[in-house]
Amino acid sequence: MGKVRVGVAGYGTIGQRLADGVALQEDMELVGVADMAPTLAIRALYEKGMPYDLYLVDGADKGEFDKLGIPVAGTFQDLLGKVDIMLDSAPAGIGAKNKVLYEKAGIKAIFQGGEKNSVADVFFHGYANYEKGVGKDFLKLTSCNTTGLIRAVDCLDRAYGVDKVAITIIRRVADPGDYHRGLTNALQIDKAPSHQAVDLMTIMPHVEATGILVHTPVTHGHIITVVATGKQKITKEMALEAFQKHPRIRVVRIDDGFKGNASLFKYARDLGHTRGDMYEIGLWEDSIVESGNDIMFAINIPQESVTIPETMDGIRAAMGMQATSAEGTAKTNEYLKIGLFKGLGL
Amino acid sequence: MGKVRVGVAGYGTIGQRLADGVALQEDMELVGVADMAPTLAIRALYEKGMPYDLYLVDGADKGEFDKLGIPVAGTFQDLLGKVDIMLDSAPAGIGAKNKVLYEKAGIKAIFQGGEKNSVADVFFHGYANYEKGVGKDFLKLTSCNTTGLIRAVDCLDRAYGVDKVAITIIRRVADPGDYHRGLTNALQIDKAPSHQAVDLMTIMPHVEATGILVHTPVTHGHIITVVATGKQKITKEMALEAFQKHPRIRVVRIDDGFKGNASLFKYARDLGHTRGDMYEIGLWEDSIVESGNDIMFAINIPQESVTIPETMDGIRAAMGMQATSAEGTAKTNEYLKIGLFKGLGL
Amino acid sequence: MGKVRVGVAGYGTIGQRLADGVALQEDMELVGVADMAPTLAIRALYEKGMPYDLYLVDGADKGEFDKLGIPVAGTFQDLLGKVDIMLDSAPAGIGAKNKVLYEKAGIKAIFQGGEKNSVADVFFHGYANYEKGVGKDFLKLTSCNTTGLIRAVDCLDRAYGVDKVAITIIRRVADPGDYHRGLTNALQIDKAPSHQAVDLMTIMPHVEATGILVHTPVTHGHIITVVATGKQKITKEMALEAFQKHPRIRVVRIDDGFKGNASLFKYARDLGHTRGDMYEIGLWEDSIVESGNDIMFAINIPQESVTIPETMDGIRAAMGMQATSAEGTAKTNEYLKIGLFKGLGL
Amino acid sequence: MGKVRVGVAGYGTIGQRLADGVALQEDMELVGVADMAPTLAIRALYEKGMPYDLYLVDGADKGEFDKLGIPVAGTFQDLLGKVDIMLDSAPAGIGAKNKVLYEKAGIKAIFQGGEKNSVADVFFHGYANYEKGVGKDFLKLTSCNTTGLIRAVDCLDRAYGVDKVAITIIRRVADPGDYHRGLTNALQIDKAPSHQAVDLMTIMPHVEATGILVHTPVTHGHIITVVATGKQKITKEMALEAFQKHPRIRVVRIDDGFKGNASLFKYARDLGHTRGDMYEIGLWEDSIVESGNDIMFAINIPQESVTIPETMDGIRAAMGMQATSAEGTAKTNEYLKIGLFKGLGL
Repeated sequence: MGKVRVGVAGYGTIGQRLADGVALQEDMELVGVADMAPTLAIRALYEKGMPYDLYLVDGADKGEFDKLGIPVAGTFQDLLGKVDIMLDSAPAGIGAKNKVLYEKAGIKAIFQGGEKNSVADVFFHGYANYEKGVGKDFLKLTSCNTTGLIRAVDCLDRAYGVDKVAITIIRRVADPGDYHRGLTNALQIDKAPSHQAVDLMTIMPHVEATGILVHTPVTHGHIITVVATGKQKITKEMALEAFQKHPRIRVVRIDDGFKGNASLFKYARDLGHTRGDMYEIGLWEDSIVESGNDIMFAINIPQESVTIPETMDGIRAAMGMQATSAEGTAKTNEYLKIGLFKGLGL
Repeated sequence: MGKVRVGVAGYGTIGQRLADGVALQEDMELVGVADMAPTLAIRALYEKGMPYDLYLVDGADKGEFDKLGIPVAGTFQDLLGKVDIMLDSAPAGIGAKNKVLYEKAGIKAIFQGGEKNSVADVFFHGYANYEKGVGKDFLKLTSCNTTGLIRAVDCLDRAYGVDKVAITIIRRVADPGDYHRGLTNALQIDKAPSHQAVDLMTIMPHVEATGILVHTPVTHGHIITVVATGKQKITKEMALEAFQKHPRIRVVRIDDGFKGNASLFKYARDLGHTRGDMYEIGLWEDSIVESGNDIMFAINIPQESVTIPETMDGIRAAMGMQATSAEGTAKTNEYLKIGLFKGLGL
Repeated sequence: MGKVRVGVAGYGTIGQRLADGVALQEDMELVGVADMAPTLAIRALYEKGMPYDLYLVDGADKGEFDKLGIPVAGTFQDLLGKVDIMLDSAPAGIGAKNKVLYEKAGIKAIFQGGEKNSVADVFFHGYANYEKGVGKDFLKLTSCNTTGLIRAVDCLDRAYGVDKVAITIIRRVADPGDYHRGLTNALQIDKAPSHQAVDLMTIMPHVEATGILVHTPVTHGHIITVVATGKQKITKEMALEAFQKHPRIRVVRIDDGFKGNASLFKYARDLGHTRGDMYEIGLWEDSIVESGNDIMFAINIPQESVTIPETMDGIRAAMGMQATSAEGTAKTNEYLKIGLFKGLGL
Repeated sequence: MGKVRVGVAGYGTIGQRLADGVALQEDMELVGVADMAPTLAIRALYEKGMPYDLYLVDGADKGEFDKLGIPVAGTFQDLLGKVDIMLDSAPAGIGAKNKVLYEKAGIKAIFQGGEKNSVADVFFHGYANYEKGVGKDFLKLTSCNTTGLIRAVDCLDRAYGVDKVAITIIRRVADPGDYHRGLTNALQIDKAPSHQAVDLMTIMPHVEATGILVHTPVTHGHIITVVATGKQKITKEMALEAFQKHPRIRVVRIDDGFKGNASLFKYARDLGHTRGDMYEIGLWEDSIVESGNDIMFAINIPQESVTIPETMDGIRAAMGMQATSAEGTAKTNEYLKIGLFKGLGL
């Protein structure tokens, strides 16, 4: 079997990172990315020397790109003709329209969290339900918060069994580079239950979940607190042991300097990661406390990059590259270099 | 019995509001306030025409006040000689030193949350343990978050019984007017369990409590989510019914315009409340959800003013003005005009 | 002459303050306020016991108000029939539509800064061009930044003559209580020149003005730096002397505790001002520096309340209550209690 | 001549970037970095596989590093014995103490902006006074704001002559990853004139400079507005032409998506720059306006990385590697790949 050929629709915050992620998978080929206008992301692609071919979606004005000297490899249709599967990170709602094109072209697709669940055959998470996605044509990834949350809950569930979770999402309100979407000196609350709790139940139907979401004026990383009720009493030691084994969970400590979400962003920048991204969720060892028979802890969700590994898993499932979650996630982790570092007492 | 004579030590964020609160109690007399330096709060007092007499604590430079034309009524000792009880809102740690002076002067005192519990005979909350404070010499008030949290938990506990709570405190990091104490684009996490959970257990020893605290870069109002396990199953309707009856809990709805903590501050400003203060905690009806047999909800803590009513309760208890929580809190509520409004479907 | 009868259209951030301002003018009568929906501001009006009569504009659903028990005094037309002049603080663009109704009703009106200049006969400022507004039917107030800026520039201009200003506006991005209009961890720049510089030239055509505006993620008070070129060299002492005499300029010092815009908001709250509002602009004595023959300084604009006095001036001008700026502004200042305090070395 | 051997003292925000910068200079060798404790930056260095040797300064506890498995190459004295020049980015004040060690070791050093000017023979800027630094033993770099500001002012000065500048610094208050240094919902003002204006005059004594600094609650990039008085009238076109030619000034436009400082950070991240750093200052074409005979414009200062190129210039000057600013800055630019991109109409 040759390399799986992948395209990316929508070269925004997520699309850029999906393209970079695919480019690192040695058993995949990134054919190109598609977008609409010469955004900052496209300008940066050009300034970097066009490492990825650019295709234009319907409605784009090619003249604008010509004027700037940005080379265009073809139309969206051209791209669809060259790939086995599309990663659709177009703005919310566009994915559903694109699906018609994907069906016509006879290719598969993975949609990001902004689309409705009905767009896909399976609402997918690389660890929690990989096998349901194997061989399917259309997957939808969980959103950033849900992806990270499920990693942690699924981790405890596999180790000890989980019956119920109550979550509090302390949500970053905007991405770095956003304007006028934000909050200024305000915490905003959504109607409960949060969609992330509902989504968790869709992926893990044996777990009862609810939660409250509060928006906060920061740009780097959601923090979620989880109160989990195990099938058995889960102690702090038991929880910590399970979390430390998970390649996509990075256990950190306040005394080591990880004081909050900004530390994790700073650390990823200092690691030299592209864009200061981190694929792992952070989990504070110091936050783990027992609440009667329940266990409580806090995780950090790097919202821009956390879904990239699970999307790679999705390609592996949909294309049948690996049959099980264990095999699929291991390949993704290998190529993205996730979970290799085991020093510093972690 | 004549009016109880009250003094205030420390005319800062809390001290100003304590003074205003005492001035509204018809069975109390505010003798004066004491401070150290011509701060903005003292300058504002002067610009308002000195509604309260000002006394200077040891170490203050009276010349500084003279130069500005700010009249001084006497020394801290002078003030202690004229009062029955002091409200001590001096910076953390100073209260313990002041206690020696209070003992010498043969007067009672109520300390704010910054002091150690050992400074006082009773760690006090107007609803949860009023009777323990009756006749005592030295009380310590719960901190702002704990005061508001206990209101809500005690409310459910009295109505239905509560065994256990797991809380997430989304803490405002600075008060309006603070500089360089704050966070900028960061969420900071403290080691769990949060002191507020521990404090709750001191006041309500029959409840097991734990929690996680996250600092956020805002100035108006902490938000706390609570997962409470009742002695019986508490439904949303049961919780709502109890909360709506509580005079110091203001039940609000997102659709009415109460989108977050900034709405509650705006509303208090629009009500014409002095400083835009609110004595009640806010509780979002839309946040109440059932989690199995647990009940989950979110409250807003107006950090600058929430402890004022319970401190008035404390005076009532310590001075033996009313014998029970029901009587004491009712008097405080009457004079502070809390819980009178019953319109707008609340 | 009886009291001038005034109505307010739009009971939002500005409208509430206009109503409060009119209510303080002893030679005016606030007939009522008009709005569209039971917003938080209207709910607060109701909770306060309806100090002002409420009229409903076209398109409002009276049933909504009835259901909440909020009394309605009549329609917008009813209000127009009872007043001599309307203060129009409806959302931007609505004022132009309302003007047709005002003309039909044969009444005058003053529009706020959001409307186009063409809506009015005169673009008005109480100090800089009061006389142009005398007897006119339709005035438009300068926006908050322009109002405060002109106070300072006009002050120097009257004292010493000003030829040219270059301004930098450090703009607060949202009002307290706003959501999702804000910035999060970003400074945003507008195309130069800023409209405030252009507006200043419309009001003060003998001054050349330009400037740059940068939005910042704060809610309390714009800061503007001004580089002014005088007709003569203006020294720091000369500037300070002029500023200190101006009733609507409050000269403050960093060492006194006025460290930034948050101090001014805190101070107004501590003064007991309704909503923590301040009518004066702040001007930092420590910011005044000479730049060759130019003079440079920084002012603080309390965006929610700064235009209220100049709007009262506008009523006085349009209704011919006083013939000159000196007389009109003096009456406004008297009733709003502006500029009375002269202590603390100011 | 062999490669110049360079060490870095203090592996913090600046030190990390200095080390990375030296490592890119083909005519220099980075011998190692020195620090005190296993900070996040050191942990990241270890997780990256120790690309740079680590030396420990006096007072460091080697046992702490051993316990974590972090290899240590030697003591600070060991490092000093192997280098020709040290880049001192130790906390403010430590550099002066280190100087004694440098003198004993007979090596040169370049101090960062936190030290007093008296620590060095020359207060240095790569463009404005390179030649003064040639062959000197101790240089002190201008601070981040001053470095960027001087680039722009020197650029105009060389092209057309500049007599006077009045600046407004809109300062980011903390770096990403800082806690509790920040502002929350406040603008804070410093006493004028700002030190950056004074520093500019030290470097460019023929220019008169003053200015006002306002701190804002953001982490990515100061914005400075400059009102410059030329020896001749400088038009917008003249200014733009000069700026566009400068390799360390990146001219950007709002309509291209560069809406503020967050866009520049986002763009650098999307370019794949390590840590999302940018060496160039941003200059908004849309901000350039004429103010009478003065020219006004706004620049963006990427505070974490802007001084890196000028520090490389400083090594070249102190070590006599190149004799002139033109030659020295050209070598630095070549190795840091600055100013190469000329597409997109820039």
